[in-house]
Amino acid sequence: MKQIYFTPGPAELYPTFYQHLQTALDEQIGSISHRSQKFRDIYKFTDAQLRTLLNIPDTHGIFFTGSASEVWERLLFNCVEHESFHLVNGSFSRKFYDYANSLHKFAHILEKPFGEGFDYTEIDVPEYAEMICVTHNETSSGVQLRPADIHKLKRKYPKKLVVVDMVSSAPYPDLDFSLVDSAFFSVQKAFGMPAGLGVWIASQGCLEKAERLKKYENLTIGAHHTLPTLWVNYKKFETPATPNVLFIYILGKLAEDFNKIGIDTVRKQTEEKARMLYKFLDGSDAYEPFVQQERHRSQTVVVTSTKKPSAEVIAAAKSEGMVIGSGYGKFKDSQIRIANFPATSAEQIDALITQLQK
Amino acid sequence: MKQIYFTPGPAELYPTFYQHLQTALDEQIGSISHRSQKFRDIYKFTDAQLRTLLNIPDTHGIFFTGSASEVWERLLFNCVEHESFHLVNGSFSRKFYDYANSLHKFAHILEKPFGEGFDYTEIDVPEYAEMICVTHNETSSGVQLRPADIHKLKRKYPKKLVVVDMVSSAPYPDLDFSLVDSAFFSVQKAFGMPAGLGVWIASQGCLEKAERLKKYENLTIGAHHTLPTLWVNYKKFETPATPNVLFIYILGKLAEDFNKIGIDTVRKQTEEKARMLYKFLDGSDAYEPFVQQERHRSQTVVVTSTKKPSAEVIAAAKSEGMVIGSGYGKFKDSQIRIANFPATSAEQIDALITQLQK
Repeated sequence: MKQIYFTPGPAELYPTFYQHLQTALDEQIGSISHRSQKFRDIYKFTDAQLRTLLNIPDTHGIFFTGSASEVWERLLFNCVEHESFHLVNGSFSRKFYDYANSLHKFAHILEKPFGEGFDYTEIDVPEYAEMICVTHNETSSGVQLRPADIHKLKRKYPKKLVVVDMVSSAPYPDLDFSLVDSAFFSVQKAFGMPAGLGVWIASQGCLEKAERLKKYENLTIGAHHTLPTLWVNYKKFETPATPNVLFIYILGKLAEDFNKIGIDTVRKQTEEKARMLYKFLDGSDAYEPFVQQERHRSQTVVVTSTKKPSAEVIAAAKSEGMVIGSGYGKFKDSQIRIANFPATSAEQIDALITQLQK
Repeated sequence: MKQIYFTPGPAELYPTFYQHLQTALDEQIGSISHRSQKFRDIYKFTDAQLRTLLNIPDTHGIFFTGSASEVWERLLFNCVEHESFHLVNGSFSRKFYDYANSLHKFAHILEKPFGEGFDYTEIDVPEYAEMICVTHNETSSGVQLRPADIHKLKRKYPKKLVVVDMVSSAPYPDLDFSLVDSAFFSVQKAFGMPAGLGVWIASQGCLEKAERLKKYENLTIGAHHTLPTLWVNYKKFETPATPNVLFIYILGKLAEDFNKIGIDTVRKQTEEKARMLYKFLDGSDAYEPFVQQERHRSQTVVVTSTKKPSAEVIAAAKSEGMVIGSGYGKFKDSQIRIANFPATSAEQIDALITQLQK
């Protein structure tokens, strides 16, 4: 039986994924050279669709990596000489911080307990931190950071680079890229694709920083997928190494589908489905939303405590053809995580709620 | 019209690729969690099939990255404290060397002109070089380094790590992994898959080196896909970050197909097809194999000079449904490159030869 995946990534494939894959196979996209005009046209198309969808200005480039985790490392290598600053409130924001330590950067941390979020007013960034690393959506705990707060951070610290992990929420958050220096995501979350491609958006300011570190500070900015090599290839819509051509093609087609629906509609549908889920959970005796503050509740990954062992809830749903995620880490047995991505419809969320009520 | 791709990667997809992809879609492999038993079973299966195919002993782990280029960087980060040594005779072996310089390693180089190969007897490795970096098959120039010579290098320098770029030849070269510390390849070459997955084979010796550099030398070994994190996850058949699950599944199935044919047969078929190509080129007035020394001629990427401008040869073949590669870099207009991977049959090579004769 085909299952519907409400897991927070890898997740349900977007319904049109299959036809785009078939077209790609018919056109032998898996065999074309990444130095051909056909590939350059694909990159250009995907770039244009993502620009429209996420409102990305010409000051920013769009690059492809193997995963979003790779981008954590690339950003730290390319854009931090000495010090970074991290808002940490879950396992993935912590990993970004861990990466900084592994690269021997001096990493500052402002930490909140699992399930709690940040507000702009409580954030003080250390003077010498060069980069402010924030996670729009903590996949592990279901906490979001509001874009307005991210924008205020950049206004308060205009000389620091503000970078946004939007792995499990893009294209939902309405970021103002005149106030965001870099953002990144993977395609196996809200874009409804299989895993295997990371997308990195970065400004000329990030590029200039990388070039300065390399030329004048005699610092290594890494060797693979450095920002200067990505950028020089990007100018002709190429990549330094052979990329995942097939997935870049499909991502462009899915972004086009989202653009046809309209990003405002995609966002409204996401919010409407999130409202349905939280309303049910708030009113149920069997569940309790993990994130207390409504303003911090993720719209794309809903995390709730379960009165029954979560394994029972998950097994019951599965027998009805619905796959939901377990809690993360130590919450594995007491929580469930429900992805609210564009691939699942309001009707499917409704069916899931009916199942959870049983 | 469907074309047959004789390009050296991305290349023709292996004929069974399509059915494995369909099975993967039917089983919703693109949606399953990379922390699930189902994924662990896939990793375990692909690991076992690759072990059989390439005769990889238990002393070596098998890991997945975004590309083979990424592995160049990972190897240098994890396994070189100060000095590396590179045999360079083409654009890709040079990139490996360039990566070492970018990471501020002291990189030694022994270089040959484009189109020439190395013999064991002429290779002297500097005393303090920790890693010997060799390229089994130079995709740019069509030169191969014989496995016997690689093995002799390790016997002569048993304390140095010998690492083999087999990007455009695996599974063809019969490496003895008791004499090879690490090897790596991408799947868009001889495995006949779309690009988007790198495979890294590394020994416990490599792991120990990485752990020593990290713990005792206080050196950064990078943050993403470090050998210690890859290895600790590998023990339970998991990966540190979300990998390309779909491609790992398909790679395992293709390796199984190769194993059913038998690696000896796959190698013999490769050699037979290479013989057909070189015999034709040697006997033709319109072409001249680029690599003069027979022992250095690649069995998987055949490079030849063309009397006519190569663009004419390429266009004529294309009009008959056959895509061949142009020369690399400055040889773009005067050479062609013909991939000889398992995805194309002897009959197809024969048809190509007939076309090239016209």
